Amino acid sequence: MAVYTEVAEDDLAAFLADYDLGAVTAFKGIAEGVENSNYLLQTETGSYILTLYEKRVKAADLPYFLGLMDHLAEKDFPCPVPVHARDGQALRDLCGRKAAIITFLNGVSIHHPGPDHCREVGAGLAQLHLAGQGFEMERENNLSLSGWRSLFDACKPHADDFIDGLGRELEDELAALETTWPSTLPKGVVHADLFPDNVFFLGSSLSGVIDFYFACNDFFAYDIAVCLNAWCFETDGQFNVTKARNMLAAYRAVRPLSDEELEALPLLARGAAMRFLLTRLFDWLNRVDGALVKVKDPKEYLHRQRFHRSVSGPAAYGIL
Amino acid sequence: MAVYTEVAEDDLAAFLADYDLGAVTAFKGIAEGVENSNYLLQTETGSYILTLYEKRVKAADLPYFLGLMDHLAEKDFPCPVPVHARDGQALRDLCGRKAAIITFLNGVSIHHPGPDHCREVGAGLAQLHLAGQGFEMERENNLSLSGWRSLFDACKPHADDFIDGLGRELEDELAALETTWPSTLPKGVVHADLFPDNVFFLGSSLSGVIDFYFACNDFFAYDIAVCLNAWCFETDGQFNVTKARNMLAAYRAVRPLSDEELEALPLLARGAAMRFLLTRLFDWLNRVDGALVKVKDPKEYLHRQRFHRSVSGPAAYGIL
Repeated sequence: MAVYTEVAEDDLAAFLADYDLGAVTAFKGIAEGVENSNYLLQTETGSYILTLYEKRVKAADLPYFLGLMDHLAEKDFPCPVPVHARDGQALRDLCGRKAAIITFLNGVSIHHPGPDHCREVGAGLAQLHLAGQGFEMERENNLSLSGWRSLFDACKPHADDFIDGLGRELEDELAALETTWPSTLPKGVVHADLFPDNVFFLGSSLSGVIDFYFACNDFFAYDIAVCLNAWCFETDGQFNVTKARNMLAAYRAVRPLSDEELEALPLLARGAAMRFLLTRLFDWLNRVDGALVKVKDPKEYLHRQRFHRSVSGPAAYGIL
Repeated sequence: MAVYTEVAEDDLAAFLADYDLGAVTAFKGIAEGVENSNYLLQTETGSYILTLYEKRVKAADLPYFLGLMDHLAEKDFPCPVPVHARDGQALRDLCGRKAAIITFLNGVSIHHPGPDHCREVGAGLAQLHLAGQGFEMERENNLSLSGWRSLFDACKPHADDFIDGLGRELEDELAALETTWPSTLPKGVVHADLFPDNVFFLGSSLSGVIDFYFACNDFFAYDIAVCLNAWCFETDGQFNVTKARNMLAAYRAVRPLSDEELEALPLLARGAAMRFLLTRLFDWLNRVDGALVKVKDPKEYLHRQRFHRSVSGPAAYGIL
């Protein structure tokens, strides 16, 4: 939940003067995303989301994110479409921040996804991977292997304040990941943050994917690993193999997975767990009293990582 | 800004099963109001606001607030209309809280109102006062004179931590208000919290009034005094007599003010300043680290109170 930057009416009017959206009929801060300020903007021509990019998003990455949404929408993937101003630019300035308007997507995100939702998200993820082909910009995944060491170093001195022995456990796990992380799996555009918050449904059908602000070029199978973690564990921490089976079967029906990709899944899932465990641990250790954003519990991802370390192979995810 | 209670899809579906609103097409937490959790709810039949009433709102008061919106809407006053479920009830239960759906009003609230907005709000306030006539429920203003003493007593031991000498200044002011507060001015339904946040405009015309959760029965002129404080001071603290003149002239064109009401305005404006000064001071002295709501600065209202204490009569507000 987040609205960090208040936009006064004069600033909004000056900003919208560069677009052809018609008169404003509603403008409300919404609790979507945790990194940026988001507003519901309704005008005579339709409904939009106005986003102001706050400090955690690098301005240099924004052309990639917005260009990717343009590219995916062009391929009929259901994502928000950046609205270009009269001069052709979608990325602009507002209240001292970079800002953009994107189209409003109908749909509702699901807090407690069931096996049917997991099937939909598996198919949707594969469609996203196919639709991303041909997108010409590149962005490294700075929250993959290359980024974990420095995040871990920043957390290490106080990791045991969170859980006794955590520093050593993560040190060992990170060393194992650094030794065995794959380098030759199929790559392309990945979402890299496809949590239930970022997927909309109408009834039981996926209607849209939002929040491309961690998208990058990485292994397709890494994106699946992120989704296994985000969608297939119950709130009590148990892994739900039915959900995983549905997700993977639906994915493979759209984009087949090679044996190498399947074999790599447990390792990639450990890595995906490391990424969220470290960022959550960093946020927890550096939490600020009075901050407007709730800090998420790193423990969830520690348990998921331990689960993936315990499995003997991809059969644990329901693959026949 | 506030979304305190997360509503999961199953809870929402069970809640909406009692209404005839059609399938949900969007559901997003919005940053409106500071006391309750508010969601934008879009369905096949239209746009709505779903409010969950959090702990600062007394459940026993909710029938008054919702009944008042029904009454005002019936009189064509532009306010949200409570949506009644199939059993006729608008006030219901969701996620362990009282909850209601109201219609979505178009319009945008203005952070920096100008003289034209003040004219609109003056006329709108008078229309609200007339439209409230005939509403049969009663609710005492527990944040008027009778409530200030206990709020002050709670703040008094630490008031000087905020500003040196503040305890004594407020003690004297409260004593003066208790001695001279009027008892016979015209009364009726008042909004009691008509800040710019709570008024929507389309272009330069008032399109709606929201947030009736402080509404009560009190002097009409007290409501004007709240608006003088909330709309007619510049961000640098200066009183803008043009804005006040516009507001009062537009009000009087719809509902004439008696000499007694005009004469009482400076005193009522001191009292209205006391109400917001004390609640802000209480919140400031009792602020919680990590709270999601920003504490508003009490100083603004101290300066406004001093201004009203300094004026010689209602002519200071541009009344000829």
